[in-house]
Amino acid sequence: MNYCSDCGAPVTLKVPAGDNLPRFVCAACQAIHYQNPRIVAGCIPEWEDKILLCRRAIEPKHGLWTVPAGFMEIGESTEQAAARETLEEARAEVEITSLYGVFSLPHVSQVYILFRGALRKPDFGAGSESLEVALFRPEEIPWDTLAFRVIHEALRRYVRDRTNGGFQVHTGTILPTMP
Amino acid sequence: MNYCSDCGAPVTLKVPAGDNLPRFVCAACQAIHYQNPRIVAGCIPEWEDKILLCRRAIEPKHGLWTVPAGFMEIGESTEQAAARETLEEARAEVEITSLYGVFSLPHVSQVYILFRGALRKPDFGAGSESLEVALFRPEEIPWDTLAFRVIHEALRRYVRDRTNGGFQVHTGTILPTMP
Repeated sequence: MNYCSDCGAPVTLKVPAGDNLPRFVCAACQAIHYQNPRIVAGCIPEWEDKILLCRRAIEPKHGLWTVPAGFMEIGESTEQAAARETLEEARAEVEITSLYGVFSLPHVSQVYILFRGALRKPDFGAGSESLEVALFRPEEIPWDTLAFRVIHEALRRYVRDRTNGGFQVHTGTILPTMP
Repeated sequence: MNYCSDCGAPVTLKVPAGDNLPRFVCAACQAIHYQNPRIVAGCIPEWEDKILLCRRAIEPKHGLWTVPAGFMEIGESTEQAAARETLEEARAEVEITSLYGVFSLPHVSQVYILFRGALRKPDFGAGSESLEVALFRPEEIPWDTLAFRVIHEALRRYVRDRTNGGFQVHTGTILPTMP
């Protein structure tokens, strides 16, 4: 951030009175511009014993597989965001059935909020951000070509839960891959 | 938003190519400025059969009671944010023990992520944003002077869970109070 989004004057990084972290503060109008983590809302869409995955048509991780998920928009709930992303990326209608996990990615200032969703019917297709969309049994999940560590971790727990016959709500912090 | 935070030129609201929602777009450098919901991370701090509440020293809802909670910062996990807010507002150290609820407030573009936390010791005090901090048994919770509907709803469910002898992870959408 270089300029104040309110008045257009330059901003400087400083700790406002009563605060304890540096913020972008406008030298002209004194507006304080906070920066906050963003929510990625997503869904594990289920049909019978399978789950629906999308192969990404966009960067990052073009060509790799993931669950439908994306940045939550203002004015919607987390459940609405997860269902909207599923419709956009997998052309599939889901009923959000339960919270599955909340995962923090502090190194990229994101929080993933993932739900389980029931496909209303086995109709789906590639949205504009997907190359292809397909149903996978747990043993068919393409572990080596998943797009993101957080999705790998979530699906690993999901398969374990399903094997154990009961779903938990999961939380955790996902750190960047170590070199 | 009036000006581009990258280059300082005026922004206009328009739907970018490949998008389906209006965004603030810079007329000069073409930067797209997304706006996203913010996370309020908080904690229900527990000590024996009591929970810790704070009476707010700041607006909104000055003088009313709430759990320690506040806007999540970049670079931290949701659990770290909840523990930090508890330390700041209630001068209390907690161990975050479990996720308690995820509540969307679409009308104010906020998502509350609330945890249960175990007080490490019964030491607490009013931080700079609190007038007073106190432990309450469930039957002592000041329902009529709670600051926020989302906290009322979360604590109502919390007391019910405790009465029933088992804690759920809760989700829901909190709408503005009807007149």
